[in-house]
Amino acid sequence: MHRAQVDHRSSAFPELTRSILARLPQVVNQTQGEAFVFPASGSGMWEAPLVNTLDPGARLLAVRFGQFSHLYIQAARALGYQTDVIELPWGEAASPERIEEALRNDTAHEIQAVLVVHNETATGVTSNIGAVRAAMNRAGHPAMLFVDGVSSIASLDFQFDAWGVDMAITGSQKGFMLPPGLGMLYVSPKALARLADARSPRSYFDLRPMRDQNSRGYFPSTPAISLLFGLDEALTMLLEEGMANVAARHRRLATGVRAAVGAWGLSQCALRPEIASDSLTAVVVPAGHDAARVIDIAFRQYDLSLGAGLSELAGTVFRIGHLGDTNSLTLAGALAGVEMSLLDSGIDIQLGSGVGAALHHWRVA
Amino acid sequence: MHRAQVDHRSSAFPELTRSILARLPQVVNQTQGEAFVFPASGSGMWEAPLVNTLDPGARLLAVRFGQFSHLYIQAARALGYQTDVIELPWGEAASPERIEEALRNDTAHEIQAVLVVHNETATGVTSNIGAVRAAMNRAGHPAMLFVDGVSSIASLDFQFDAWGVDMAITGSQKGFMLPPGLGMLYVSPKALARLADARSPRSYFDLRPMRDQNSRGYFPSTPAISLLFGLDEALTMLLEEGMANVAARHRRLATGVRAAVGAWGLSQCALRPEIASDSLTAVVVPAGHDAARVIDIAFRQYDLSLGAGLSELAGTVFRIGHLGDTNSLTLAGALAGVEMSLLDSGIDIQLGSGVGAALHHWRVA
Amino acid sequence: MHRAQVDHRSSAFPELTRSILARLPQVVNQTQGEAFVFPASGSGMWEAPLVNTLDPGARLLAVRFGQFSHLYIQAARALGYQTDVIELPWGEAASPERIEEALRNDTAHEIQAVLVVHNETATGVTSNIGAVRAAMNRAGHPAMLFVDGVSSIASLDFQFDAWGVDMAITGSQKGFMLPPGLGMLYVSPKALARLADARSPRSYFDLRPMRDQNSRGYFPSTPAISLLFGLDEALTMLLEEGMANVAARHRRLATGVRAAVGAWGLSQCALRPEIASDSLTAVVVPAGHDAARVIDIAFRQYDLSLGAGLSELAGTVFRIGHLGDTNSLTLAGALAGVEMSLLDSGIDIQLGSGVGAALHHWRVA
Amino acid sequence: MHRAQVDHRSSAFPELTRSILARLPQVVNQTQGEAFVFPASGSGMWEAPLVNTLDPGARLLAVRFGQFSHLYIQAARALGYQTDVIELPWGEAASPERIEEALRNDTAHEIQAVLVVHNETATGVTSNIGAVRAAMNRAGHPAMLFVDGVSSIASLDFQFDAWGVDMAITGSQKGFMLPPGLGMLYVSPKALARLADARSPRSYFDLRPMRDQNSRGYFPSTPAISLLFGLDEALTMLLEEGMANVAARHRRLATGVRAAVGAWGLSQCALRPEIASDSLTAVVVPAGHDAARVIDIAFRQYDLSLGAGLSELAGTVFRIGHLGDTNSLTLAGALAGVEMSLLDSGIDIQLGSGVGAALHHWRVA
Repeated sequence: MHRAQVDHRSSAFPELTRSILARLPQVVNQTQGEAFVFPASGSGMWEAPLVNTLDPGARLLAVRFGQFSHLYIQAARALGYQTDVIELPWGEAASPERIEEALRNDTAHEIQAVLVVHNETATGVTSNIGAVRAAMNRAGHPAMLFVDGVSSIASLDFQFDAWGVDMAITGSQKGFMLPPGLGMLYVSPKALARLADARSPRSYFDLRPMRDQNSRGYFPSTPAISLLFGLDEALTMLLEEGMANVAARHRRLATGVRAAVGAWGLSQCALRPEIASDSLTAVVVPAGHDAARVIDIAFRQYDLSLGAGLSELAGTVFRIGHLGDTNSLTLAGALAGVEMSLLDSGIDIQLGSGVGAALHHWRVA
Repeated sequence: MHRAQVDHRSSAFPELTRSILARLPQVVNQTQGEAFVFPASGSGMWEAPLVNTLDPGARLLAVRFGQFSHLYIQAARALGYQTDVIELPWGEAASPERIEEALRNDTAHEIQAVLVVHNETATGVTSNIGAVRAAMNRAGHPAMLFVDGVSSIASLDFQFDAWGVDMAITGSQKGFMLPPGLGMLYVSPKALARLADARSPRSYFDLRPMRDQNSRGYFPSTPAISLLFGLDEALTMLLEEGMANVAARHRRLATGVRAAVGAWGLSQCALRPEIASDSLTAVVVPAGHDAARVIDIAFRQYDLSLGAGLSELAGTVFRIGHLGDTNSLTLAGALAGVEMSLLDSGIDIQLGSGVGAALHHWRVA
Repeated sequence: MHRAQVDHRSSAFPELTRSILARLPQVVNQTQGEAFVFPASGSGMWEAPLVNTLDPGARLLAVRFGQFSHLYIQAARALGYQTDVIELPWGEAASPERIEEALRNDTAHEIQAVLVVHNETATGVTSNIGAVRAAMNRAGHPAMLFVDGVSSIASLDFQFDAWGVDMAITGSQKGFMLPPGLGMLYVSPKALARLADARSPRSYFDLRPMRDQNSRGYFPSTPAISLLFGLDEALTMLLEEGMANVAARHRRLATGVRAAVGAWGLSQCALRPEIASDSLTAVVVPAGHDAARVIDIAFRQYDLSLGAGLSELAGTVFRIGHLGDTNSLTLAGALAGVEMSLLDSGIDIQLGSGVGAALHHWRVA
Repeated sequence: MHRAQVDHRSSAFPELTRSILARLPQVVNQTQGEAFVFPASGSGMWEAPLVNTLDPGARLLAVRFGQFSHLYIQAARALGYQTDVIELPWGEAASPERIEEALRNDTAHEIQAVLVVHNETATGVTSNIGAVRAAMNRAGHPAMLFVDGVSSIASLDFQFDAWGVDMAITGSQKGFMLPPGLGMLYVSPKALARLADARSPRSYFDLRPMRDQNSRGYFPSTPAISLLFGLDEALTMLLEEGMANVAARHRRLATGVRAAVGAWGLSQCALRPEIASDSLTAVVVPAGHDAARVIDIAFRQYDLSLGAGLSELAGTVFRIGHLGDTNSLTLAGALAGVEMSLLDSGIDIQLGSGVGAALHHWRVA
């Protein structure tokens, strides 16, 4: 027996479904196509774009420049898709030139989709998706553009229509400031047109029953209702602030964090300033030091969670998140914790130097 | 930036993971094999047992006797598995005899697994899984036994080991009394042994990275943390009560509900008393009446959510749930709401008759 | 360090204060005078009307017809006020005739205020406050009228202006459906005019600094902020429903409960039907039975809280509350619990009879 | 109708009452006498010690050295007690010498109690209560010692027994880290012995019915149940940490904040280092600047609540709280906000200087 308002089969439920699905596209400036929500983690959403639009064994093009783009490629291959990979140094962004070149070489137009991670959470690097689309157009290639926006959507500027994105995915736990458990999927009209013919086996992530039920305000399987209520509220907050303001706020916070890194005399994992992410910053520790020790001290001594360097960056990088429900004071507190943890780890920085440098950017007056 | 205790990569997180995974098996009396938790709905878990143990196009045997067994078969077929179906009237339970017969006919032992819904939520019918296993053994067939326990596990008696189950699945929103969003999967040693060789494409539901990460206390993708905290608490509550007591409590509540249906002069969808479910009761409205009207009145006038008849039962059946966080008084209130809704719909019953009949069973003294 | 929005000295706080104080009067149909909120229990509010308007040792007139009117008189006497008492049988309502007579006898007009409990929670009896005021007017007596509305305000019809009430008090935990911890006080212009001259010592309950701070949106001492947020929300819910509808809803629920008591063959503590309360019903157990046993069984066996008979009613009465956040189904569940508890206690009633009688009144169609 | 576990008259309620009342004394190292909890604000608790132990018009001795000691004196006078006042500069602590002198002059031993604020929230000054008691003893005076511990108890060291305190009061919203709404009162055996004979009128704050009901696990009026559950949990947290550790933690945090004030080149309101409070710091802005502007900027631009200078300190002081649920990182964030607000207000400080100075003290290694 459920309270009426949380029964996902009740006649009152479509109001919630529609409130969410009508507003979700505005977060990425999408005016065409449709948006969907699944009970799944963000990385689970790597699967949905592929199985809904491709035939088994289809050929893809992907760019690897960090752990999450690596895992995205692994997911595509695990599902049996033949995935060409452009390898870039970790710390670089997706290269439009290399994508253009690869597509020009595919004269038979076998490549069905290009897979790009917008914001590589492992390295703190943001790719230029608009430039990727321009490169695809220059190559005159019909491939679709699939974008992992897990740590960008609802935080950074995202122009679904203008960038010609065909599928974009994210999760509830980053820009939407919710607990994890929901995956969101944005689909272009071009990608929607493939649903009927794509022959990849699929069940849970099949968009056809989802579209059918969504159109009547329901879901084909039990939705994660408590998180949907949270998502509805998050949409109200984000759209009231305005997505351009949300992006500007993240930009402003990130500028301060980058100033702090500079004041400490440390460098970022991002190899060039113009690709540094506004939603998180990956910091490289000096040679001879262990980033894992900094992270461990931060967690145990100061109750501060820093992200670890992943895979080939393990031990050389720690990550500071600055997306979602953060403001200058909580971030100043986090920078203070980083400063103490660095010094406790034997990395010689001046206490207060990074916070002070950040405050210069965060001052309002 | 997260609070330390909710960072799923922190060194404190494995404590939660282990607390859950060590206790989840006790709910189904499982002592061998492993249990898993996914951010997914319960029906999403139909996919995991199949893709992790089967080759593409593998042959299966399933029984259809209600809407959820029907959807289970649809999922298997959508994933490309060749699924033989034993058709039974809706209101019947899975027939061990028919399963034995089908398996005997499969002399080449092509059938890889038998798919059975334990408790058919659409009809309020509980199958005898132990008898199904005995039938499989009598047939001398090596197929695995996959059980949908969405509306039975954590409510009804479930003997994973004794019944020889190979895969059992459920969701968070029924017996575990949580919001929806988690899917649980129980796996036998025999099924685990198939993970390495099964050639079905899989990514999100792949148990290999899940096992690997779980063994160290982590998850391969971001888990639905808020629900995991709830699950940990739900396990404490269930195991403190004891699973035998949980089952007895559901039996007692169900007996009262069935007495109420009898007092109203109505019949159940379950065709025989011994297969009537202890977790929900599907009630057939008299000919000439519309169950949808009863449900609509209950929702709009009395703030009571009744389940609808699904597919071929639409309009003839409404369903009363009595699993999870329910006691005799909330259930008496629900029965009272059903009584008023029935009478308001023109179905002539005596107000108080069903509640009174139920109270006879629920009295303690 | 507080979050800005919960700092009761911040420049944002007056918005909350004003939202509450502007709407609180509408709950009792007050258009003149002022309303106040204290961090205190409802019975604590007995003190505020007295110390703010009276000189030490002032003479009062009160009516005793149950445990709460008894405690009200005790409070007045403990504070040193000379309190004449009209004694009535417990189960009766305040008698306008007796009040008129007492006031006529006070030819010197020494009596400063008449103290009446609107809804006597101990006996389930509602006094007619309008009739009391009419009696006071007939006597031509200038005394103020102080009303305890703890279990009536925000549930039953309350006409502060029309009934000529000078002070009315209540708490957060009844009609406002909040946790306990707030006391509300409604004050007429006549009573407000006494604040300056009243010479009773007072500090915590002194309305002068409260008025002064309230007028600027603040409180003289730290308010119970979490409950104030709840009160603001409760006001929105109550006023959206409309106070006349709230009263009608309680009347409808009460009618059903009274029908149940009749169906059980039991009688109410209220001695006449027209004074039976719409917010709770006190039920008399048959001679030879112990109401405490019914209450104990309800609590231990069925998780149901019934109110006990208090003082001279101990053992002969149990009380069923039906105010606040209750609807027909939760109340049907409570009645079902009462039925089982009665039978378990050896009181011979027919299971379902009371619930059925109530449902006749609660059916919508 | 309440859920059973929150019915304050149920037979299960005494478990909560006893859990709280048995542990509350440990917070102040009290082993004799009793502790009480009222639904009231902390300042409301000024009234209880007086009315429960004194006759009307009794003579008291109090020390004024800030706004809260001023209000405490006002409360005593409003209740009709003749209150001698030792005036000290705001920024000083209670003077044991002056108290000794005043008591020696009272050769007739008319003074019934000495009223001292332990931690003056307005100025960030902590008085030495042990030294006050020693002075009283030296004077050979039998007066009781009443202590306002609103912003000290559960944060700073408090030795109820060793300091010979007779009454100590506090509220829920400071050291107990709860929402406001509860007042706590600690009473010595000597003070308890006065309850029977004290002739001040009292009702709500009367300890006699409170003791009587508490002894059976109940309260004389409806307690603020939701806050009591919170208090029970807060006691568990505080006592697990250990009160000596709690005090040391506050000392450590305060040392950092004072270092920050020094680094900014500003001075504290506390006139001597040894009386500076460990639970909050009042900072004096340079001549020609307006502290209200700093506070307003902090609130509007940085979502940071600073305390205002009160009464004669208005405009010259702002206050930084560092008690309760605070750690070094949230406090570093607050200091960062202060830095930006100071600079935005035209007070020339170096960004990062205060935070850096604090971090030197907060580093673990």
